[in-house]
Amino acid sequence: MKRVKCTIAYDGSDFSGFQIQPNKRTVQGELEKALAKMHQGKKVRLHASGRTDAGVHAVGQVLHFDTALTLPPHKWKRALESLLPADIQVMLTENAEEDFHARFSAIEKEYRYFVLNRPEPDIFRRQYIYHSPYKVDMEKMQQACQVFEGTHDFTTFASAKSTAKGSKVRTLSEVSCNKQGDIIEFVLRGNGFLQHMVRIIVGALLETGTGRRTPNELAEILAKQDRRYAGKTIPSEGLYLWKVSYDKQPE
Amino acid sequence: MKRVKCTIAYDGSDFSGFQIQPNKRTVQGELEKALAKMHQGKKVRLHASGRTDAGVHAVGQVLHFDTALTLPPHKWKRALESLLPADIQVMLTENAEEDFHARFSAIEKEYRYFVLNRPEPDIFRRQYIYHSPYKVDMEKMQQACQVFEGTHDFTTFASAKSTAKGSKVRTLSEVSCNKQGDIIEFVLRGNGFLQHMVRIIVGALLETGTGRRTPNELAEILAKQDRRYAGKTIPSEGLYLWKVSYDKQPE
Repeated sequence: MKRVKCTIAYDGSDFSGFQIQPNKRTVQGELEKALAKMHQGKKVRLHASGRTDAGVHAVGQVLHFDTALTLPPHKWKRALESLLPADIQVMLTENAEEDFHARFSAIEKEYRYFVLNRPEPDIFRRQYIYHSPYKVDMEKMQQACQVFEGTHDFTTFASAKSTAKGSKVRTLSEVSCNKQGDIIEFVLRGNGFLQHMVRIIVGALLETGTGRRTPNELAEILAKQDRRYAGKTIPSEGLYLWKVSYDKQPE
Repeated sequence: MKRVKCTIAYDGSDFSGFQIQPNKRTVQGELEKALAKMHQGKKVRLHASGRTDAGVHAVGQVLHFDTALTLPPHKWKRALESLLPADIQVMLTENAEEDFHARFSAIEKEYRYFVLNRPEPDIFRRQYIYHSPYKVDMEKMQQACQVFEGTHDFTTFASAKSTAKGSKVRTLSEVSCNKQGDIIEFVLRGNGFLQHMVRIIVGALLETGTGRRTPNELAEILAKQDRRYAGKTIPSEGLYLWKVSYDKQPE
């Protein structure tokens, strides 16, 4: 058996998230259907760097699977693409070391969140960028970003319904925001993310930008370790799993 | 009865075109459903500047309808928007003169066609821009645009299946193209367009850009008045009904 590493992009709009579920259209479901077709109907289980929720996009999701087929790596890309729907794109396929694991070998993930910040919405981008018409103070928001960098217990900024057990301590190496034209781009990089974490943090940052909260308040509620203190989880359409980094690139 | 003029945008991706058809999701169907809700279930027939095909978008489609309701114009916008799906947006509602007609009063229409001209497709814009990976000579293409400006019989560049009777002579006041970054924008303005005309013309222009045809050849096949001489109708996802102009703005 050979292990194949695969980097994919997907448009999350029409998926019930990444993870396979019965009777739902999922990214994993479509990928495993394509892999089964390539393996005479035999199920091939794939492993991704992590799940993404319904409506969340990816430009650099990474996954691996094991196969008895001996295609050269670039042929995998072509073969899979010919079997996948138009909303999943294969960016890169590579041979991986046998101890490579898309989830457990990952050392850092990067998410980006895009906000269209102008009075009118854009009907053609409604599934790809979150519309917020309110004026924001970028400097205040950049200041607030600092609150989240470093190692913290992120209970306040994660879904209370999360089934994940264990520590909610994570380390974020970058939390930043920038505005170009009428688009605000948030970048969050870290060693791990809890469910809804990016969307709750960016929501809180936007509240700071519009003056509804101060950076100090964010530090206070972070310390409380209680989801009820943070605001709403903002919508999935602005969120992209941007990149997954591995400590050693497979050959 | 009062006549209301309404300017709308729509994302054509999930519509079987503008015109109402039984058991299909159409823009007109959704609009008339919303109007019926506002009129106690009574059917209100609307008239648009023209149809658009499945997958074609609009940023400035214009329509009118007659109503016994006496809402101020800006309230129409709000009321309709609250009843319409997310892929139709009401840009403007105005009171119209009683002799205003969205189709017959129109003096000029503008269409734009967008091409993503780079090797890799963009999965997030696949429904909003046509991907052509081939290198194009913009100067050649701009030269070829001139062939279409002015008054011509456009039989060669219109659907042969078109049911429209009568003359296929139309006058185009502008045919131009421009490239910014990796996006080519085509602008076509004229007093009328035949079915598929923009998509067949832009397809022929791209063929000139990639060197498969010369501007002279385009002039020759235009003169032949025979659809078989032109190439394929390129896909609808790049096409936008941009603007409809009326000789007198209704008050």
